Amino acid sequence: MISATEAEAIALRLAQPIPEHESIATVDALDRVLAEPVRSRLDFPHWDNSAMDGYAVRHADLGSLPVELAIVEDIPAGSAPQQTVEPGQAARIFTGAMLPPGADTIVMQEDTAAAGPGRVQILSAPEAGAFIRSRGAFCRAGDGILPAGLAIGPAELAVLAAAQCDRVSVVRRPRVAVFSTGDELGAIDQPLKPGQIVDSNQYALVAFLRQMGAEPIALGIVRDDRAALKTAIQQAIAQADLVLSTGGVSVGDYDYVDAVLAELGGELHVKSIALRPGKPLTLATVGKTLYAGLPGNPVSALVGCWRFVAPMLRKLSGRSGPHEAQWLTARSTQPLRGAGQRETYLWGQWQVVQGCVEFTPAGGSHSSGNLINLAGTTALAQIPQGVREIAAGSEIRVLLIPGA
Amino acid sequence: MISATEAEAIALRLAQPIPEHESIATVDALDRVLAEPVRSRLDFPHWDNSAMDGYAVRHADLGSLPVELAIVEDIPAGSAPQQTVEPGQAARIFTGAMLPPGADTIVMQEDTAAAGPGRVQILSAPEAGAFIRSRGAFCRAGDGILPAGLAIGPAELAVLAAAQCDRVSVVRRPRVAVFSTGDELGAIDQPLKPGQIVDSNQYALVAFLRQMGAEPIALGIVRDDRAALKTAIQQAIAQADLVLSTGGVSVGDYDYVDAVLAELGGELHVKSIALRPGKPLTLATVGKTLYAGLPGNPVSALVGCWRFVAPMLRKLSGRSGPHEAQWLTARSTQPLRGAGQRETYLWGQWQVVQGCVEFTPAGGSHSSGNLINLAGTTALAQIPQGVREIAAGSEIRVLLIPGA
Repeated sequence: MISATEAEAIALRLAQPIPEHESIATVDALDRVLAEPVRSRLDFPHWDNSAMDGYAVRHADLGSLPVELAIVEDIPAGSAPQQTVEPGQAARIFTGAMLPPGADTIVMQEDTAAAGPGRVQILSAPEAGAFIRSRGAFCRAGDGILPAGLAIGPAELAVLAAAQCDRVSVVRRPRVAVFSTGDELGAIDQPLKPGQIVDSNQYALVAFLRQMGAEPIALGIVRDDRAALKTAIQQAIAQADLVLSTGGVSVGDYDYVDAVLAELGGELHVKSIALRPGKPLTLATVGKTLYAGLPGNPVSALVGCWRFVAPMLRKLSGRSGPHEAQWLTARSTQPLRGAGQRETYLWGQWQVVQGCVEFTPAGGSHSSGNLINLAGTTALAQIPQGVREIAAGSEIRVLLIPGA
Repeated sequence: MISATEAEAIALRLAQPIPEHESIATVDALDRVLAEPVRSRLDFPHWDNSAMDGYAVRHADLGSLPVELAIVEDIPAGSAPQQTVEPGQAARIFTGAMLPPGADTIVMQEDTAAAGPGRVQILSAPEAGAFIRSRGAFCRAGDGILPAGLAIGPAELAVLAAAQCDRVSVVRRPRVAVFSTGDELGAIDQPLKPGQIVDSNQYALVAFLRQMGAEPIALGIVRDDRAALKTAIQQAIAQADLVLSTGGVSVGDYDYVDAVLAELGGELHVKSIALRPGKPLTLATVGKTLYAGLPGNPVSALVGCWRFVAPMLRKLSGRSGPHEAQWLTARSTQPLRGAGQRETYLWGQWQVVQGCVEFTPAGGSHSSGNLINLAGTTALAQIPQGVREIAAGSEIRVLLIPGA
């Protein structure tokens, strides 16, 4: 058995960014990851423009104040100036509008007064060049504006649109096959026979993969039969970058996953982790495909996803790092109990109290058999190996659940 | 001008949870919000079962050890036991399998040895009842398992599936109309005329709304014309719970939004906020529809979404609170400059260093005219009103960007 940190390091060594890129329309690029750096096609600002509503003037005209200037035109945003501002003249200008030729300074509206038709009185003079945003001040055409590995959110879409990049090269989404093993598994909408439970893992894992930006391939339930399992694993491997199975990885007589993987020429890198919940966890590679065999227990399966599969997906997706789980220091509102020999994760909620993260464990049993109180989980708290109890108010480390 | 905190409080007073509910298939419920509490249809566990791979025995048989017991059957998970365990007998059992009648204790496989065909030797005795998960121990049929207001993620889907809730009642998604105002606005894929910029706000706001679980209604660009604006606002109000417009809310002669809202019988609740970026911001109601008039400047528009619209959407969506922006204490890696009179937000990235949140401002200009370096933003840092400079290494408050 290895530690969770060692298992994560192995998972991240095995996972490599998907090398296939796709060119897609920028409008469809939300939550995708840039495969290549993006360079600007345009200067930003595109031309000298006003940062204020006011008057575009020649600073040399502001020697003795107040001074009256003749207004030669109005320049709203979106219009090209038609006139040159000559000595003794000004142009009314609005925020974002192009600076007219001849003008070198903007006087804010608040520093002016009306002075009869077609004239403005300047009451106060800013320094020369005031309130002008110069062409190219923020970025020049050809400059890099977005690095490869950046996930595209609202701000990145705004930048891409502003720079007229209407298509982008993104990393193909990770394809992840999911299946559940176990003769005990039934469907959500069929009466359960004695001994049966619903295959809830398929629902949870597909949702988790959607949240992580992966493309789930749901392969359903595979019976506890070695030939059926082999066929399922072969089919999964053929179409996925990563296969997630649940069940079949403990030491029971009916657990075949590790044996079948070996039969298929797979290499087993992790077989179990000193962790509660989630001790039995297989990390393997079969050819170029990654395989994570998660426990069948729904709590352990989802904790395994949050702790180990999420980092792998971040790396597969082409995102720049860090890919590792990010543990935040928090304060526990309750005493927390650990398993002693194994690192323990307790599930619960985080909230911010006066700027600090507080963790409250879910009420009820923290047995891995109790799926019910996993609902509402927004964080996992870590109890280190060897620690049996942590007092309320102590500092702990918490992992914020992605998407929660 | 009011403070950002006051504006947020007004926004949250105006926004009310959408009262319309929809019944949808659980498989489609990811990221939806429960409209009603969910009760379990089943006991959890559904029946007494084993928490281990091992042997189901009668504890009374374990008085003197080692003892040999006759194996009456194998009970894998998913099978109903066929035999009663009588004195001197045991049943081989696997994790999650039903406890057979007669047995009251599970002996772990590790505490047994083979003892010839059909027999097992028990080497060590646990306490009576060990490793049995009793029917209903975690939850009884009829118990509430998920509260109204909970967002449905992977864990909640697992619980719903496990309890055989194949449909759920969720809150209708907030419908949010988005349009941009301004004669300066051009399209991503058309040559820009002098004075034109791309309407990047439409891209950013639609993406932001998708990330927040709202249903965006993109209405495009509206020219700086009072009649056109009135028509656009009327159309938007007719189909949305919330309207987001960008531009037209400063004090320029070409800014009509507030005037048109007043003409339509709207009530203006906020007109400007002591904030940089994002001072001009209108919050209004027209009948039952909320209206947020954001600045046209792309940086200010998106900061306004993150700071004010996100809390409104959380409340509209029916999620339980807190709906307010959550400010975390962080350490700045760089000196930060504020605007003095107004509260200032600087954009940048957060990272976790030894459990603590560190904030690094984006490189380049923090002028609200500079959209370029907003890319990659994962947090906003707050410089309080009246503060001009914060030294590197100081504690600050940061807002983590939703979805980043």
